[in-house]
Amino acid sequence: MKDRWIQVGVIGAGSAGDQELAWAEEVGREVARRGAVLLCGGLGGVMEAAAFGAREEGGMTVGILPGPDRWEANPYISIGVATDMGHARNVILVRSSDGLIAVGGQYGTLSELAIALKTGKPVVSLGSWNLGPPVIRAASPKEAVEKLFQVLTER
Amino acid sequence: MKDRWIQVGVIGAGSAGDQELAWAEEVGREVARRGAVLLCGGLGGVMEAAAFGAREEGGMTVGILPGPDRWEANPYISIGVATDMGHARNVILVRSSDGLIAVGGQYGTLSELAIALKTGKPVVSLGSWNLGPPVIRAASPKEAVEKLFQVLTER
Amino acid sequence: MKDRWIQVGVIGAGSAGDQELAWAEEVGREVARRGAVLLCGGLGGVMEAAAFGAREEGGMTVGILPGPDRWEANPYISIGVATDMGHARNVILVRSSDGLIAVGGQYGTLSELAIALKTGKPVVSLGSWNLGPPVIRAASPKEAVEKLFQVLTER
Amino acid sequence: MKDRWIQVGVIGAGSAGDQELAWAEEVGREVARRGAVLLCGGLGGVMEAAAFGAREEGGMTVGILPGPDRWEANPYISIGVATDMGHARNVILVRSSDGLIAVGGQYGTLSELAIALKTGKPVVSLGSWNLGPPVIRAASPKEAVEKLFQVLTER
Repeated sequence: MKDRWIQVGVIGAGSAGDQELAWAEEVGREVARRGAVLLCGGLGGVMEAAAFGAREEGGMTVGILPGPDRWEANPYISIGVATDMGHARNVILVRSSDGLIAVGGQYGTLSELAIALKTGKPVVSLGSWNLGPPVIRAASPKEAVEKLFQVLTER
Repeated sequence: MKDRWIQVGVIGAGSAGDQELAWAEEVGREVARRGAVLLCGGLGGVMEAAAFGAREEGGMTVGILPGPDRWEANPYISIGVATDMGHARNVILVRSSDGLIAVGGQYGTLSELAIALKTGKPVVSLGSWNLGPPVIRAASPKEAVEKLFQVLTER
Repeated sequence: MKDRWIQVGVIGAGSAGDQELAWAEEVGREVARRGAVLLCGGLGGVMEAAAFGAREEGGMTVGILPGPDRWEANPYISIGVATDMGHARNVILVRSSDGLIAVGGQYGTLSELAIALKTGKPVVSLGSWNLGPPVIRAASPKEAVEKLFQVLTER
Repeated sequence: MKDRWIQVGVIGAGSAGDQELAWAEEVGREVARRGAVLLCGGLGGVMEAAAFGAREEGGMTVGILPGPDRWEANPYISIGVATDMGHARNVILVRSSDGLIAVGGQYGTLSELAIALKTGKPVVSLGSWNLGPPVIRAASPKEAVEKLFQVLTER
């Protein structure tokens, strides 16, 4: 199974500020540089910035979409999964990720963080909801990805 | 459509302390006394206590279950909806509720609160996660139900 | 658990001919006369006719809806479950039913029949897809309901 | 969006005979030779044979799994999507596929065919359920893939 990549979920809001978008892009780049597949919600904002970053580094991106049509994905999604399940796709995104990085984010991201904690997935927060441990905090995109990979490879 | 009842979701953990169980039962009683249908996750702890309370007052209870078998519901569930969708059933519970009352609760409840806020449902917290407004805070079961019905009937 | 009712799913198309609508209404009446809860997809056509019939006899009806809003249900639905999961709600409807009656129907109904057979639920066909045994065939609404209840009460 | 591949779903039973397994492997090979991504249910039987074939030709495979753990996928799945939604994952598989090829198959496959027809996806049957048009019939794996790509590229 050496051909199965680490799958990292990047979560965050569909409309985000400049700081978050820059962070998300850099997180995407760092994930791709480590040869991992980037999963996200497939739409705009943080999701698009992270996918853009990953693709710029030659990475693979998967969009777990809320709607019925995979072509609603942002243009940097390699593979679109059209769930047609609205917010319930958040659960699929968490379940399918080995670990997650939350970049900023609002209530949708909070629901993903909660499901990640409920299901025991490692999560790194980069300017996201402060839920205390076991959420890992990071101050930069690089630190976020490094800390997540440290947990994932220790396992 | 006068025969369609208000549907109130009661959310909280499957294993809860005595205080929360007592609160949940009383919330269930108050919901039933107002002629509303009580929706919950259908399992134990807060879900069971709330359903028990509602049934004691002659109310109707609906359990939105995570598993594939409706008979896994606690004995106070009138109608079991077997989603077989794990935590994604939380989204269905929120979507199907006109408003929600959170009694204590852990990460699962947090995911439901987040989805409720994301979808604009009124939510009352009774000793649950403190996410600030628009979550409505209450200090007793009766106050929680009163405050929720005030919002629901004003609409 | 004597207070838990039998849950019968009635499936069929959202746009149906007069024969099917008349059958569906009578199926709904027969289900309600036996004190069972009627589950359906909550929308129009066969779903609405069956719910109307059940309500006319004082029965309880549950609509497992594809959309995010329970108020999209037809007016004869007592309790609306808003799944926001599109066609995947068909699986929830099957899982939540002790047995099912298919009245006519097209591809959506076929998907429900297939899931019912996959999960071992008893199914009666009234002018619906002819998939051979174990589907039970009936020539009238009354025969359909009688045959289903015979299987359900033998278990 | 030139970097977005065609996504072909291959559906069929988890336990299948030698003929079906040989067909599925060859379908997988043909899909990969055309540079498309192969989607399947991620488990054994036809799903595994198709994924094996695709990977042998250097293709990419996505498993839309019914359970909560992506590591339950067969070893030839590149990217695992853990839906934790049981049979409802069939709907996600269909929604995410531009077109589908059914190799043999039982009730699960029938539910997927039905959803594919309901949602207007082109489907080719290779020894699968005979539902009449618009299902396209094929007598060999190569013909099945050729016919599907003809439809997909005409659009």
